[in-house]
Amino acid sequence: MKVGFIGLGKMGFGMAANLLKAGHSVTVFNRTVDRARPLGERGAVVAHQVSEACAADAVFTMLADDAAVEGMVFGDEGVLRHLPAGALHISSSTISMGLTARLASAHRRAGQGFVAAPVFGRPSVAESGELAVIAAGASEAINRARPLFEVIGRRTFVVSERPETAAAVKLSGNFLIASMIEGLGEAIALADRAGIDRRAYLKILTSTLFPVPLYENYGGMIADRRFEPAGFAVPLGAKDLRLFLAAAESLRVPTPLAGLLRDRLETLLAQGGEHLDWAALGFLPARESGEGGVLRN
Amino acid sequence: MKVGFIGLGKMGFGMAANLLKAGHSVTVFNRTVDRARPLGERGAVVAHQVSEACAADAVFTMLADDAAVEGMVFGDEGVLRHLPAGALHISSSTISMGLTARLASAHRRAGQGFVAAPVFGRPSVAESGELAVIAAGASEAINRARPLFEVIGRRTFVVSERPETAAAVKLSGNFLIASMIEGLGEAIALADRAGIDRRAYLKILTSTLFPVPLYENYGGMIADRRFEPAGFAVPLGAKDLRLFLAAAESLRVPTPLAGLLRDRLETLLAQGGEHLDWAALGFLPARESGEGGVLRN
Amino acid sequence: MKVGFIGLGKMGFGMAANLLKAGHSVTVFNRTVDRARPLGERGAVVAHQVSEACAADAVFTMLADDAAVEGMVFGDEGVLRHLPAGALHISSSTISMGLTARLASAHRRAGQGFVAAPVFGRPSVAESGELAVIAAGASEAINRARPLFEVIGRRTFVVSERPETAAAVKLSGNFLIASMIEGLGEAIALADRAGIDRRAYLKILTSTLFPVPLYENYGGMIADRRFEPAGFAVPLGAKDLRLFLAAAESLRVPTPLAGLLRDRLETLLAQGGEHLDWAALGFLPARESGEGGVLRN
Amino acid sequence: MKVGFIGLGKMGFGMAANLLKAGHSVTVFNRTVDRARPLGERGAVVAHQVSEACAADAVFTMLADDAAVEGMVFGDEGVLRHLPAGALHISSSTISMGLTARLASAHRRAGQGFVAAPVFGRPSVAESGELAVIAAGASEAINRARPLFEVIGRRTFVVSERPETAAAVKLSGNFLIASMIEGLGEAIALADRAGIDRRAYLKILTSTLFPVPLYENYGGMIADRRFEPAGFAVPLGAKDLRLFLAAAESLRVPTPLAGLLRDRLETLLAQGGEHLDWAALGFLPARESGEGGVLRN
Repeated sequence: MKVGFIGLGKMGFGMAANLLKAGHSVTVFNRTVDRARPLGERGAVVAHQVSEACAADAVFTMLADDAAVEGMVFGDEGVLRHLPAGALHISSSTISMGLTARLASAHRRAGQGFVAAPVFGRPSVAESGELAVIAAGASEAINRARPLFEVIGRRTFVVSERPETAAAVKLSGNFLIASMIEGLGEAIALADRAGIDRRAYLKILTSTLFPVPLYENYGGMIADRRFEPAGFAVPLGAKDLRLFLAAAESLRVPTPLAGLLRDRLETLLAQGGEHLDWAALGFLPARESGEGGVLRN
Repeated sequence: MKVGFIGLGKMGFGMAANLLKAGHSVTVFNRTVDRARPLGERGAVVAHQVSEACAADAVFTMLADDAAVEGMVFGDEGVLRHLPAGALHISSSTISMGLTARLASAHRRAGQGFVAAPVFGRPSVAESGELAVIAAGASEAINRARPLFEVIGRRTFVVSERPETAAAVKLSGNFLIASMIEGLGEAIALADRAGIDRRAYLKILTSTLFPVPLYENYGGMIADRRFEPAGFAVPLGAKDLRLFLAAAESLRVPTPLAGLLRDRLETLLAQGGEHLDWAALGFLPARESGEGGVLRN
Repeated sequence: MKVGFIGLGKMGFGMAANLLKAGHSVTVFNRTVDRARPLGERGAVVAHQVSEACAADAVFTMLADDAAVEGMVFGDEGVLRHLPAGALHISSSTISMGLTARLASAHRRAGQGFVAAPVFGRPSVAESGELAVIAAGASEAINRARPLFEVIGRRTFVVSERPETAAAVKLSGNFLIASMIEGLGEAIALADRAGIDRRAYLKILTSTLFPVPLYENYGGMIADRRFEPAGFAVPLGAKDLRLFLAAAESLRVPTPLAGLLRDRLETLLAQGGEHLDWAALGFLPARESGEGGVLRN
Repeated sequence: MKVGFIGLGKMGFGMAANLLKAGHSVTVFNRTVDRARPLGERGAVVAHQVSEACAADAVFTMLADDAAVEGMVFGDEGVLRHLPAGALHISSSTISMGLTARLASAHRRAGQGFVAAPVFGRPSVAESGELAVIAAGASEAINRARPLFEVIGRRTFVVSERPETAAAVKLSGNFLIASMIEGLGEAIALADRAGIDRRAYLKILTSTLFPVPLYENYGGMIADRRFEPAGFAVPLGAKDLRLFLAAAESLRVPTPLAGLLRDRLETLLAQGGEHLDWAALGFLPARESGEGGVLRN
């Protein structure tokens, strides 16, 4: 299939590389073209204009936030204008439910297909093509996109025909990860103060109640105070919590835990945590009980 | 081994039955003797006085809360007075770090052994002898208790030589379960309002981020609004959160999420949720967004 | 002075009426013109276009939220386009720090003056001309506006030369009022449950710790469950908390109490409290402890 | 009247001094007798045993917490044992509703009178005899105590015939003060970051919304980072929040704001704030947004 891929960040790079490896004809675009060159060496066409990436059966966007997606899609030289009628826009960025719905209706009016397909998985998982793809959109469009999903992910979950429901699943998943980190952070801080070895404590948890990689990995990062390099940085997490809260507001669901997590992430940002993995949320209870290091001040 | 067992509630009954089945000589005691009879029929000696259960190599206590354990151990006719010198008290109740430390020192002064050994697992797991035993105490005492742990549990974790550290692990484990329930409750309520089938939503979560029975079981109870009969009732959960907060206070660890959970459990109690499983914590976000049923008012 | 006044809601109407009474030549504009007629009868010119209101030495805007102000100022037929060079825009709406800063720079570029001048006081206070005016902007502009402030308010406070600081003061004032309401709500609910007459309890508070009208008025509304008609409705309060949080985010100040209040206001909205005065925030603790009435469900 | 006074801390000393000055015959008792001597010089009898202070028409207790009051009243050499039948115990300490109710029934059984009479006011107000006395108990007992209240306070408020209601009023008053401090802390931190002078900001607040000494005094302490010497230290505040939460639990009133304040006070304690005035609660938002000083670490 002729595929465009816009946005070669930590996640997008691996996804595009896998599409290429699977034999698709891929044109890649990135704001800073340097980032695209290694894919060029593996056979991708390196676009210098968005329009080149849009000359395709399907174009992925994998960008940082709502503003980036809005600019890329609705701008004068954007996807909406250059994607051929009948072709497909697959939006894999983690963005708001509101923008997802707006994208869907703009593409519908333009006679283009649209699938929201955010993914679960960190950069290394993107690289190995084992992401979980959370897809929502018209069945026909999803069916067209499915062969591509099978390349970038291990499994595809179709949520509903309304694209914004995929955004709801993705955002709530990140909210649940943040909840887990905060919980682990408070529990590990208490165990530590009680004189229990942090790693041994975590081992008990993951051998009994929570035998699952997310608890092991994030718990390990907290136990070891290992927050760099950031796989998923604090500002991205703060953004996702804000989007989750915005979704909760518009759906009229009170979410006090999400409110608390938002505040904790803001605390991290205010204390110089911008460059850290959001696992550092789990360091705050230790810090607030007097431990130094990691953060400024 | 000659074993006493005090407290035949939902958990204790199954534990005592397994000790019996494994061939130990077991004397059981329960405030209301009716509860003990079925074990009598299986070969246990049914005690009418605490002292009878204490005439043993080791006596288990598995009671509801700090007050019950204090009364049973320190009372005039209590364990401390009747347990032979050199014999062992194994405390499996979920109680405070403070009381656990007091028990340890009282038994030490009386020349008796003491092991704190709270367990993870719901009543059905106690019945099948597959609990996780979280043990702490002097190595010598733990070694003596180990054959009994192997009967009631699938696996034993030794935390440290200080018995109160086992209480810290147990209480923090319950705190993490409550965190998970609150998180799931908010996420499921949002998904529901976004028009996503609650069960289908949960399936995505447990197929991707959280493939683990606790998420499946509690998530399922929330999705189905199935909170009766209570495997672990709200008042017990509220008690455990209070004990976790008391531990955090005495160790000087700020724990905002635990504070929020305490408040949510109090809300459940105030609204007639006393008889419900604490999974009902995960119903509050739906209720606060306007859904009726389950709770009073 | 020749004055335009845009936005004749509960607050704006009284402010415009006082400007008129003080002898200024006032042209009023409101989306729905009916609202303007009574002022026409008192001598105001009733404009049918924004441009008419802008043909003035100074034009006030007093609108519901950021979106309304943005539309009114930046739109094709908006204030920015029609206000004469050298004339003054006085923005009294409660809006974000971000929009306030954007307004300031847009007017500067257009050669127009700009003062942010939100006010403290409920509609009856606007009517009696006793508002507190919180002004920020260039000294020269503030000096020109001062005679008008003296008509609508009892006292003017100049915050700084940067207009967005007035927004910060106004938003934080509303945050403090919400904090007070939540506190009073929890305290009154507890007193009530303890068997103390709610009014008598409030009387003690306002005779000792808090002898101040805000505590008396909001406390009285809570004690009497009197939330209609709304002087300041829940959606406006929810909006202001969101703006306060957005300001806190951009200034990197963690504000956990503001986060909690936002969630409580969302709870009110989710339970059908849209039409109530935000004093109803102080009813939630009673409701959560089982009292019926006031809200849906 | 023959009056005993037990507990000569910051508050008790001034209260006892005023009783003496008013011409009552006062016997004072304090754990460390040095603290009593200055009153001896002014004419008080300095007791070396609790029993001496109890040989009176009425005995005040003004002690630090529940444990101190329990020990002083129920101990072998305590008030309950030594107070003559018919005489009065006036409890002015800030203690739990539960202990207040227990004191009331113990004294009733012993044929003694009991009035709960906690007070509002800081040490300087105790010294000047201008406290607000919050009294509850049998009318007859309150009438007997009234002349004494008129000496220590400017005004007496009778809550109800049940002594524990006075505790509810006192504890909830302190909760409201803590709410105010937290609110002011977040608002002042935001204003500060927005570039507004902290003192000027506070002046606007106390000239408009909150023209009341509590806001002026606590706000001033926060604005000036002036938390020593402590008029009311963090551990006392933390204790009172815990008692408020315990009251809320037993009355089944969810109080999320109180939960948050408890956590914030624990944070202060964990970070070396033990010696500070609880106004330091209002420094936490500044600290969390990166300001150094005041606290450890």
